Formats: sequence, structure tokens, C-alpha cells
Amino acid sequence: MNHNKASSREIRVVLVETTHPGNIGAAARAMSNMGLTSLVLVNPREHPVDKARWRAASAVDVVDGARVVETVDEAIAGCELVVGTSARDRRIPWPMLDPRECGAKIATEASHNVAILFGRESRGLKNEELQKCHYHVNIPTAEAYSSLNLAMAVQVITYEILMAAREAPPPLEWDQPIAGADSVEHFYEHLERTLTDIGFHDPDNPRQLLPRLRRLFNRVRMDQMEVNMLRGILTTVDTARSSSREDGT
Amino acid sequence: MNHNKASSREIRVVLVETTHPGNIGAAARAMSNMGLTSLVLVNPREHPVDKARWRAASAVDVVDGARVVETVDEAIAGCELVVGTSARDRRIPWPMLDPRECGAKIATEASHNVAILFGRESRGLKNEELQKCHYHVNIPTAEAYSSLNLAMAVQVITYEILMAAREAPPPLEWDQPIAGADSVEHFYEHLERTLTDIGFHDPDNPRQLLPRLRRLFNRVRMDQMEVNMLRGILTTVDTARSSSREDGT
Repeated sequence: MNHNKASSREIRVVLVETTHPGNIGAAARAMSNMGLTSLVLVNPREHPVDKARWRAASAVDVVDGARVVETVDEAIAGCELVVGTSARDRRIPWPMLDPRECGAKIATEASHNVAILFGRESRGLKNEELQKCHYHVNIPTAEAYSSLNLAMAVQVITYEILMAAREAPPPLEWDQPIAGADSVEHFYEHLERTLTDIGFHDPDNPRQLLPRLRRLFNRVRMDQMEVNMLRGILTTVDTARSSSREDGT
Repeated sequence: MNHNKASSREIRVVLVETTHPGNIGAAARAMSNMGLTSLVLVNPREHPVDKARWRAASAVDVVDGARVVETVDEAIAGCELVVGTSARDRRIPWPMLDPRECGAKIATEASHNVAILFGRESRGLKNEELQKCHYHVNIPTAEAYSSLNLAMAVQVITYEILMAAREAPPPLEWDQPIAGADSVEHFYEHLERTLTDIGFHDPDNPRQLLPRLRRLFNRVRMDQMEVNMLRGILTTVDTARSSSREDGT
């Protein structure tokens, strides 16, 4: 049952700007019940506080061991698979999973570090946070009342991770290491700089360009060699651009 | 998504001797998120109290509408399918489901009223309560920490009920109505009386006789005509016995 120990990969539960410390504790207990121990808190309003530790019950070590960071980028650095929970339909459709498919995906990618992002109690994840994800996961609900408690969402998702680990399919094989989220993020920054520089992207009138590029490349699940190649291309464009500037063209 | 409205059958969440009213509220929210509204409380320690209503958030109507009863028998009366959550291995193995199989079972028996029993925070359901069930359902957990919060257990089970309802198989067909739990319970009482009376069952040295009989008949899922038949047999035995007594034998 200790699927998290069995492999050396990490499955992180990332709680973004959680308001109620009780939810942090309840989430810690939920994930611990399902065999997960890696908790990352992005800008929690109150932490550490006793209320979180009480609600964690026997998972108090998960609360105490939680890593606190300031940005989602720090939270997902080093993860090859990033999934964001999303209750609402977004302007740009993104590859979607239901919790069961999410569990299966994580089981399949048995060697990849995983981050699962859970948003604020009041309004979930922001669009720019969701756009850092490879997949969005939506928990089905009744139409009449669709807003799950945060820790309940953690329970459902981690339950499906455990269920899938019990009957794991053969792991995904690949000849190159998949790129970490931080590496891909640097690529996006580079891409935006270059596109702005060459006049393709207007920061004052961005439209949906960057989100759509993110969606494209996040669907691809690039390996590190592919990221290196694309950045090499961007650097080549940058160099050509600056030398043409020097030529006065 | 309103699978509970679509059919006229009832799916009851039964919380047995809940200690913390916050768990009642959180359970109400969890089931409401999954489209269920019928909550039955067996001897809650505190009810109704504000703490339950707060935790219920927008499911406060489920808390306010909860039926409070004194016995499990009252709670499950009229239900043709009774499932009890069970964390531990019991002395006598019982037909077991995991939460997914439980959801599928409930979806298959689309015309049957269902009760799902959740036990006390501290020690779950008692053996005699579990023996009233057709199936036990066990939520898989990590070995290191297997004790789920009560409302989390409600969330996982009701989530699977909703998931199964979305892809429901063709409903079970049967020529006779399946017997309700109260009707079967009367049969068990009758059976015990008769077995004691005839000297087969010794209440001072019961061993596992009655639980094993319950397990047998609960696996069968009797229809009402079958219950009537068996009770007719018992009555016949009773009558023969009392007339032989009158004869002085």
C-alpha cells in the first residue's frame, strides 16, 4: 500500500493561499490516510497554528513537515507532471481529467514527480496558475451544490491516487527525462521575451497568445532535450535580431 | 447529475452515534455536493447545534432536515440494500465491497432504497450493527494511518455513488419486490426465538450462530415472498412445538 515509498518519486499536494488552517490540517490527514506525506503550502494565511495540528490528528508530522513557499513556481519546481484542480469552466479549454483519470495518469507516470494544486477556498486557482498545469482535474458534483470543501477535494483526489496505485499499469517508458516545471517555465519566459522582441506579441494587447502557447506545450509534455532545443532556437532568434539591430536594419 | 431525483428511490446516509456535530455538518455538505439529501442520525450526541450548521455551509437544509432516530433498525427500515462502512477485519468475514464496487452496486439496484451506515468516530460500527448489512464497504488506506475522518469517509463513498450513477448499468430486474430491512429483521427475531425454543440456540452460549445466519441470509438478498415463506415455516415449527408441549412431551 505504500506506493509512495515503493518508488522514489514524489507526489506533492500543493495548497495555494489557504485561508483556514483547519483545512490544512484536514488535508494533511486526508493525504496521510492515502499514503502521501509531501505537503507544500503557497502563502498560507496562518501557518503553523495549533488548529491545523489538531485537525491533522495522527498526521501532525505532515503539517509540521510542510514546506512553505511564496510562489506556485517554487511549489512545482522539479515536477514533471502538474495537475490543477478546477471547479469552473475556463475561458480556454484545457486538457481535463476526472479524479479517476487523474489517479490513472499519476500511476502510469510512475517515475515522474507530481504536483497537484488546490486553490483558495473562496475562488480556487487563478487562470495564470491553471495555465502552469499539464492537466486540470474536476471533481464531479451535483449541479445544485458544486463547491467542495478544500480538504474534501484533497481526500477525493488522493483516494483515486491510492486506488490507481493498487492496480498500476506498466509505467510509461521514455528515452529522455521529462522536463521539470521550472525548466519549462524558463522556456515560457524566454519565449515571451523573444516574441515581444520580434513584435509578434504585444504586452499591451496580449489577447490569448501566451495562454494558448502554454496550453500547446503543456499538452506535449516535453522532455528536457526538447526544451533545450527550443531554447536553442529562441537564442538563435535573439542573436540574429540583435545583430540585425546592430546593422541598423 | 440529479440521479437521486431521477429515480424515486432513496439513498440514505446514516450516521450512528456521532460524537462531533462538526462531522455531521461536514458530512451533510459532502453528501449534498454529491447529490444526496437524505440524512439519518442515530442517537447523535449533540443535535441540532450551530456548529453542524456552520460546517454544512450551503447544505444547511440537509442538517435541518435530518431524521433523528434511536436505533439502527429504525434508520434502515424500508431499505432493500444496507451497506456498512467497516475499517477493521471482523471475526466473521462478510461480503466486502470497495467504495467503487459499492457505487456500482447502488447504481445497479436502481429501484432499491439504500442505507449506508457510518459508525462512531472512535470505534466505528458495532458487530451487531454490521451484521444488519448486506455488504461491508472498506475504504482503502495507507497502512501507516488508516483512520479516516468520518465526513471524509462520507465524501469518498458518496463520490463513488455519483461516479457510478453517471455511467449506470441496466437496472437489476426481479419478479418480486426485494424485502426491506425491517421485514428481514423481524424474520431474524422470529428465527432466533424459534431456534431458542427448539433448543438449537443457547442464548447463554451463543457462539457465532446468529451472525452466521445473518450473513447467510443477507447474502441472499431475499425478496418479500421468500421472507413470508420462511416466516411461515417458523410459525409452523412454533405451532408444532407448542402443541407438542401441550401434549406434555
